[in-house]
Amino acid sequence: MPSYKAPTRDVRFIVNEVLGLESHGFAGGSADIVDVVIEEAGRFASEVLAPLNAPGDAAGCTRGADGSVTTPAGFREAHARFREAGWATLSAPEAFGGQGLSDVLGFAVEEFMSSANQAFAMYPGLTNGAVAALLAKGSVELQRKYVPRMVSNEWLGTMNLTEPQCGTDLGLIRTRAEPRGDGSWAITGTKIFISAGEHDLTDNIIHLVLARTPDAPEGTKGISLFVVPKVLVDDDGALGARNAVSCGALEHKMGIHANATCVMNYDGATGWMVGEENKGLAAMFIMMNAARLGVGIQGLSQAEVAFQNALAYARERRQGRALTGAAEPAEKADPLLVHPDVRRMLMDAKAFIEGMRALYLWVGLQGELSDKSADETARQQADDLIGLLTPVIKGYGTDKGFETAVAMQQVWGGHGYIVENGMDQFVRDARIAMIYEGANGVQAMDLVGRKLALNGGRAIQALFALVDAECAAAKAEPRLADLAGRVEKANGELKAATLWFVQNGLANPNNAGAGAYPYMHIVGIVALGLMWLRMGGVAARALDAGAGDAAFYEAKLVTARYFGERFTPDAGALRRKLEAGSEAVMALPAESFWFG
Amino acid sequence: MPSYKAPTRDVRFIVNEVLGLESHGFAGGSADIVDVVIEEAGRFASEVLAPLNAPGDAAGCTRGADGSVTTPAGFREAHARFREAGWATLSAPEAFGGQGLSDVLGFAVEEFMSSANQAFAMYPGLTNGAVAALLAKGSVELQRKYVPRMVSNEWLGTMNLTEPQCGTDLGLIRTRAEPRGDGSWAITGTKIFISAGEHDLTDNIIHLVLARTPDAPEGTKGISLFVVPKVLVDDDGALGARNAVSCGALEHKMGIHANATCVMNYDGATGWMVGEENKGLAAMFIMMNAARLGVGIQGLSQAEVAFQNALAYARERRQGRALTGAAEPAEKADPLLVHPDVRRMLMDAKAFIEGMRALYLWVGLQGELSDKSADETARQQADDLIGLLTPVIKGYGTDKGFETAVAMQQVWGGHGYIVENGMDQFVRDARIAMIYEGANGVQAMDLVGRKLALNGGRAIQALFALVDAECAAAKAEPRLADLAGRVEKANGELKAATLWFVQNGLANPNNAGAGAYPYMHIVGIVALGLMWLRMGGVAARALDAGAGDAAFYEAKLVTARYFGERFTPDAGALRRKLEAGSEAVMALPAESFWFG
Repeated sequence: MPSYKAPTRDVRFIVNEVLGLESHGFAGGSADIVDVVIEEAGRFASEVLAPLNAPGDAAGCTRGADGSVTTPAGFREAHARFREAGWATLSAPEAFGGQGLSDVLGFAVEEFMSSANQAFAMYPGLTNGAVAALLAKGSVELQRKYVPRMVSNEWLGTMNLTEPQCGTDLGLIRTRAEPRGDGSWAITGTKIFISAGEHDLTDNIIHLVLARTPDAPEGTKGISLFVVPKVLVDDDGALGARNAVSCGALEHKMGIHANATCVMNYDGATGWMVGEENKGLAAMFIMMNAARLGVGIQGLSQAEVAFQNALAYARERRQGRALTGAAEPAEKADPLLVHPDVRRMLMDAKAFIEGMRALYLWVGLQGELSDKSADETARQQADDLIGLLTPVIKGYGTDKGFETAVAMQQVWGGHGYIVENGMDQFVRDARIAMIYEGANGVQAMDLVGRKLALNGGRAIQALFALVDAECAAAKAEPRLADLAGRVEKANGELKAATLWFVQNGLANPNNAGAGAYPYMHIVGIVALGLMWLRMGGVAARALDAGAGDAAFYEAKLVTARYFGERFTPDAGALRRKLEAGSEAVMALPAESFWFG
Repeated sequence: MPSYKAPTRDVRFIVNEVLGLESHGFAGGSADIVDVVIEEAGRFASEVLAPLNAPGDAAGCTRGADGSVTTPAGFREAHARFREAGWATLSAPEAFGGQGLSDVLGFAVEEFMSSANQAFAMYPGLTNGAVAALLAKGSVELQRKYVPRMVSNEWLGTMNLTEPQCGTDLGLIRTRAEPRGDGSWAITGTKIFISAGEHDLTDNIIHLVLARTPDAPEGTKGISLFVVPKVLVDDDGALGARNAVSCGALEHKMGIHANATCVMNYDGATGWMVGEENKGLAAMFIMMNAARLGVGIQGLSQAEVAFQNALAYARERRQGRALTGAAEPAEKADPLLVHPDVRRMLMDAKAFIEGMRALYLWVGLQGELSDKSADETARQQADDLIGLLTPVIKGYGTDKGFETAVAMQQVWGGHGYIVENGMDQFVRDARIAMIYEGANGVQAMDLVGRKLALNGGRAIQALFALVDAECAAAKAEPRLADLAGRVEKANGELKAATLWFVQNGLANPNNAGAGAYPYMHIVGIVALGLMWLRMGGVAARALDAGAGDAAFYEAKLVTARYFGERFTPDAGALRRKLEAGSEAVMALPAESFWFG
């Protein structure tokens, strides 16, 4: 049975020491509050959610003949405790009953909950995005009616985009919305893959649904967003009649068994429009961008819990001898951790996890800066960086998160393939993060096709400059000079790749399409390099200042070095793949891919 | 429901046109025989085994209270048909009832069976290795009693190595063998992870079991091999009493559900020694090397079937528009195949699959040359190449096979995560191949720690020379010059990496250990590069000669080019990782990997 302990020390290091959250003066950013919230959230995740993870995977959700859905034993109680403890309201706005704490903290707590139990964390997780969409585009009435009870998690929310014929291409949506004449709409259609579409955690579920109004233009310009509650809500807030929306089936999935993935049938269900007619996609993107960062964090979260359990196994399991001679001659064999190739897998995991954790927390900080900074340039740059790095955190983060979970399963050898040991669940759960909220190839296209060119490439230029400055500064520090040189080189590959797109992607967009995926991974490597330089710098200064906890800081410097040695070389290889262009990619006619 | 069609055209291309099997004059190597066997085996795999794959995954095996094991519906009948059709005896020696056909054919048939149904193919697959061990080390009596009925698959075989405390480190084996005084031994102990340890396909199961005799030296020098039949066999060959060996439990696994993975209890079971006392490991290695090639083929096999189903989906599923403008304006959306990033995934798969297929078939040919060539140097080189490339086919082949299955699942988007579509089974089944028969890290150590240095590096030097010669020749062919330059560069990285090991691995073996994994992947890239140069050369000449089927040969040239562009750049990155050495890998004390 696997276990989970929240990496509170590392989060405190990043939030307090690397990001210096307190120095920004945001509400709830003081180190005192950070430490208390982090420790308490970590305890909740480890003690309440983690024990339900493997049993939830084994039991899954069940659908009754009446369309009701029952979550695994313990989920309902755990969600009640989650609500009571205030985890739902942490970083929500105070005007709607939230605690108004920093998004940085909210993200860290999301990591813990998701490591402990990804399928559970998805229930409140999706609600956050629905709230964001309502706050950005909903009328005052809709906000007043729904948002406070969603913030408190008294009700949970969902996102309804996908239909059988319509996945990535939302222009293909067929669900219809007919005006009722009283300001409400009748929604009719079938949505699939609706996470948390039906369950027993709350008395009401608030669906945000994309649909077409009569005579709406074809394609994505004719999509509107509607709020459709499972149970209708009176003007005084009392629950009324059941709405004509129901769960038609539960999907059987590779993983996240404890999250109910529903086919949702809308049979003239009553809904209200959110924002303007035919502008639904913009509203949905607010929701989706929040969700994409959350999914990136999920990728990391499965890597972290898998790493913890692989590390424990590598310390305990004895097999073979150190190559340099028996490490523990009194025992019949040495622990796995003596073997360089086992350490390679664990160090790969550590370098990715800690670098990606710094990156998502830093992007969380950008979110606050973009809202709250007094300096317009700072707000703009923060906004640029969020836009640029959201697809990278989602795409690169979940690719590496899954890869890490697989490698951690490998540390367990044959025992990693046995269900009872729990490593396979981390792999199966991590797998979905590469797919949903826009498959990772879609993230790469969002990065290269949209984010890169915005405002004349302002965002990527900002990243280049940040990395160059960090490399220049780090070269003066002997413990970081090697890493700085390697990150500078990777940044050079990124610049060259970007220039190649400018020169070759406009004339032939297939060149951009064929190179987008390697490009996304180069940005991921460079962004993690920036984080490792910053973490390394803080660690070096802490050691120089004689800080306690020297082993922690020394490990940061070793891992920073490892990152440079083992992650940055890929940037050059990825650039060469990208620069090969699209000719061979596009050359084969459909019938020439396979010959029987 | 996924489907499978055997890639007979590609196998015929490699066997007849690239390897020119007929020209070697081996029994059953004529193109006529090859074509018939390949087509028939393909049909059997597609029609009989593939339909049982998904139902077998869903049903799994069940163990009765008496320790009996029932395979999924249809497996017993399918195995009977497998036997009757003669697939079991294909490449077994005629002296023991085999058909004596080429190993090359045997390998190709293994691929088909495993693509169609990996869990099924494991039942006869493991028997081949057991037969090899008995033929190499068993007494004439043991061979006479067991081998013909194993060759015919009347009885199936198993390998019993692993124990709860003993995986990779076979020196930790505790199972005991006590002499009975009549030439037989009493075997007592518990073995775990025994594939096909118990089932209902055959009336008898022949276990090959590693155990320690009394007073055997500690460690791997005190291990002997025993044959332990499930049912004792009289001297006249009649089945007698049940032996004291039984299945104590079935493991619950991530995949290969239809193969019974057993805990086997030996309670004074009667066995007979195979080969010499305390020399069991050498005998077991004969079995394991055969099995390792088979597992490498499994990795490829799951990549192939996943590729076929991803390709079908990419042709049919419509979503979005080509970046260069609508490809099929009359439809609401274009097929997925218009998207460069979808093609990237499919081309990655195609370049790996066809290159790896050529490699395993070429190594199959080396197996015949090492046995049958009249030229001693040729026999020696063939032997060297088999030894060198077996861990590469197993390690690199299954890493890439799994990665490919995951990417093919990705092509399906959210639908790839749904069990009924079958893509997740390919991923779950492919996962085990990276683990069993020596985890891939063990393969890398076998390559770098054992195979590389044998005979003064003769094997790797032979590979260098083959690749250099092929590159030199291919440069004269304009359609291959780019690929030749890239493979030559990758071969240069491999030479440099090898030299680095010579200079740094002897003084500090951790440098070899920390670099072994990247090294294994460089060898994989170079070996596939050699195959693509050869296939490209054959294709170019066929086109020049005006061969029919031009689309097939043109696709080979496109894929060869793609391989060069997208696979070879990694060789340089891998070399740089390797040359970073082991300092950062080994630096952290066990307690510094994670701080709570």
